[in-house]
Amino acid sequence: MKFEKPVPVQWIAEFTGAKLIGDKDQQATGINEIHKVTNGDISFVDFEKYYNACLTSAATVIIINKEVPCPEGKTLLVIADPFSAFVSIVKRFSPFEPATKMVSDSATIGTGTHIQPGAFVGNHVTIGENCLIHPNVTIYDHCVIGNNVTIHAGCVLGADAFYFKRRKDREVQYDKLVSCGRVIIEDDVEIGAGSTIDKGVSGDTIIGRGTKLDNHIHIGHGAIIGKNCLFAAQVGIGGKTIIEDEVILWGQVGVSKDLTIGKGAIVLAQSGVPASLEGGKTYFGSPVAEAKTKMRELSWIKRIPEMWEKINNKDK
Amino acid sequence: MKFEKPVPVQWIAEFTGAKLIGDKDQQATGINEIHKVTNGDISFVDFEKYYNACLTSAATVIIINKEVPCPEGKTLLVIADPFSAFVSIVKRFSPFEPATKMVSDSATIGTGTHIQPGAFVGNHVTIGENCLIHPNVTIYDHCVIGNNVTIHAGCVLGADAFYFKRRKDREVQYDKLVSCGRVIIEDDVEIGAGSTIDKGVSGDTIIGRGTKLDNHIHIGHGAIIGKNCLFAAQVGIGGKTIIEDEVILWGQVGVSKDLTIGKGAIVLAQSGVPASLEGGKTYFGSPVAEAKTKMRELSWIKRIPEMWEKINNKDK
Amino acid sequence: MKFEKPVPVQWIAEFTGAKLIGDKDQQATGINEIHKVTNGDISFVDFEKYYNACLTSAATVIIINKEVPCPEGKTLLVIADPFSAFVSIVKRFSPFEPATKMVSDSATIGTGTHIQPGAFVGNHVTIGENCLIHPNVTIYDHCVIGNNVTIHAGCVLGADAFYFKRRKDREVQYDKLVSCGRVIIEDDVEIGAGSTIDKGVSGDTIIGRGTKLDNHIHIGHGAIIGKNCLFAAQVGIGGKTIIEDEVILWGQVGVSKDLTIGKGAIVLAQSGVPASLEGGKTYFGSPVAEAKTKMRELSWIKRIPEMWEKINNKDK
Repeated sequence: MKFEKPVPVQWIAEFTGAKLIGDKDQQATGINEIHKVTNGDISFVDFEKYYNACLTSAATVIIINKEVPCPEGKTLLVIADPFSAFVSIVKRFSPFEPATKMVSDSATIGTGTHIQPGAFVGNHVTIGENCLIHPNVTIYDHCVIGNNVTIHAGCVLGADAFYFKRRKDREVQYDKLVSCGRVIIEDDVEIGAGSTIDKGVSGDTIIGRGTKLDNHIHIGHGAIIGKNCLFAAQVGIGGKTIIEDEVILWGQVGVSKDLTIGKGAIVLAQSGVPASLEGGKTYFGSPVAEAKTKMRELSWIKRIPEMWEKINNKDK
Repeated sequence: MKFEKPVPVQWIAEFTGAKLIGDKDQQATGINEIHKVTNGDISFVDFEKYYNACLTSAATVIIINKEVPCPEGKTLLVIADPFSAFVSIVKRFSPFEPATKMVSDSATIGTGTHIQPGAFVGNHVTIGENCLIHPNVTIYDHCVIGNNVTIHAGCVLGADAFYFKRRKDREVQYDKLVSCGRVIIEDDVEIGAGSTIDKGVSGDTIIGRGTKLDNHIHIGHGAIIGKNCLFAAQVGIGGKTIIEDEVILWGQVGVSKDLTIGKGAIVLAQSGVPASLEGGKTYFGSPVAEAKTKMRELSWIKRIPEMWEKINNKDK
Repeated sequence: MKFEKPVPVQWIAEFTGAKLIGDKDQQATGINEIHKVTNGDISFVDFEKYYNACLTSAATVIIINKEVPCPEGKTLLVIADPFSAFVSIVKRFSPFEPATKMVSDSATIGTGTHIQPGAFVGNHVTIGENCLIHPNVTIYDHCVIGNNVTIHAGCVLGADAFYFKRRKDREVQYDKLVSCGRVIIEDDVEIGAGSTIDKGVSGDTIIGRGTKLDNHIHIGHGAIIGKNCLFAAQVGIGGKTIIEDEVILWGQVGVSKDLTIGKGAIVLAQSGVPASLEGGKTYFGSPVAEAKTKMRELSWIKRIPEMWEKINNKDK
């Protein structure tokens, strides 16, 4: 997320109660998780093993839970609980705005677009031209929808990222990373009934041009779906996963988070994808393997009784 | 779909820009995909390997991409892109009608039926007597619902068929077959919260009398579900599949498109059905097998280490 | 369910047409399924093999389909069809109340709670403080929601239990056990978009404090989910299942009904749980096994061709 205007690091230090080290006169221009940071961003790190990744990232302001040498040109904000400091900044600059009507006055809606009754369009939403938003769709604040997009009834775009830090010493253990990313739907996308697409934690969840989603599909926070993909019903995609162009996922496929499926891959129904897949191939199984390998495995399993027979006959 | 009144084939030839061959004076009475055509219908074919099936079908008017001899009593409409011609006819005779209120004035609602707040009832919908339509349900135009039907909150009936023709040479590759079929819910059906039932491409999706669906169920376009079926939560059924009477599907079962599950079959939880199943039996697995076969397979797998031991001991 | 005030057993005998045996002067204080009964409750039994369990349960009034000796201090109501008698009592004391507006006047809503547009809040619902109910959520009558609860768009809380008695001799075979339980959401729970949580048949479905549910999750009737659980998207939980505290279920996991998953168990993505699991362990597979056992099995399967080779080489 980018701020509307730059924010002085000294103000942030004061707001969060952090100790400022390094450049005291910088201006932060946005806030982002470590894997999304660009120059000017505030990011945070609270595990020593990620210190280096964060300190050498593009982030300009780093909220950190230990006093370490400040890299040239950056600002460190040292505080015991960087996660909570990060969340407090998100809440400050991207506060929840209660809605008073089904279609917000601050939404921009292109010509030729129909919003059917019962559809909710949140604050600062942008919808392009010639779209069709069916009844009882919910579009949370700040979503961006292109042209010629059809969203079927009951879909939910822009719900919060499912991202929690576990604090085992608390009575309520899961502490929410309040999200401030957006959902971006490119042109010519169609989204089937009852599908849900969560917003990114700080970056955007993107559905690429011409991609078609069937019903009951779940797209996790910050996932990036390429162009001309086809997902059948009840597919689920984990957070921050990248699906390249022209990927086909059949029904009930589950894809884990933080991985990449290469261009043109086909994953057969009910498969489970725990790790990245090369493009251009067909996959099956849970966990997934190349379909031809998996099919061979299945036929080998059927031959076990025959093997057992062979082994025992030789005993005689 | 049947037209409101017969349409002269010469008008259709002109409207689509097709060359007319054969009987010039026929009237088309409807439009249907090849597997649903009845006498009087317009259908289309664009692959040579399906020419014969289409030319010998009940279709009276055939949109085709090659000049072939016209069968007796039929009319051919020859055009480079039959798919697009078909879509243009569907759009002309079954245009989208934007809604202005949650319950359309053109809907017919039987006595004793409650429509709860937030439910959307589209144009030309028919709902029978003593039904209960819970909040935030969406019923698209032209759906037909019988008597004593309960539809729980968040359901979507009649969303578009998920049916696309891929055109790899275009920037936006998936070209939508605009659907004009209906959803028909027979008497005494109950549909669980958040379920979605898509309309047929040109024919109807049917849920048979007395069938009970749990939550989050997806029924694809043109599927025909028999009477007294029981589907547990999160089941998905592909397009045009036929489920005969008294079939029981447990949770998260996935059924592929274009197949038949025979009467009284039981499919255990999480199974995947890629091909037709005989009735009266119990099945399990992904891909599915008879449950007792599958269970034996699973116990054989557990004996592999024992076999390995036997083989290697004999080496000594 | 407890009645608003005690109901004389003689009134119930007359209302249902049952023959009264035993204590004629008792007052029933509620109605419950056999596994939920407490003192004062009416329950029912219609299978001889469950007679003993019901007659020795805490139930005070037992609707039964055979004249048996009445246990001391109880009342029997003998009738040919106890199931239908039970349903008629539920309908009498927990009748459907049609809604006339999106937020019922009989709902109680705490301070600091936002109900977004398009959300439905039924009769007699209680919502605590500082909750956020997103658009197009449906909360059925009698649900109870604690403090600091977030419910994302499209969720459905309190839909009917999916519980039917099959009567094969009828044209409409599945006879519904009308449910009168509630959904109780404890404090600090977050529920992802499009999730559904059914009410209990007669008891309550409970989501424990601090539990976080992702999108498209289904929780069956009467399930009890512990505190600080984390369920990823598209998980399904069967009716009356108990999930103890701090259980983690990854995406698309399916859990059958009437079982228990012990504290702190972790079930990996797409697993299917057909029977109870001990706490503190990690599981995988469909049907599920301990993850390390399952992983070993998967690697043994890959060695079958090598075994086949070994066996056949020895033939030479």
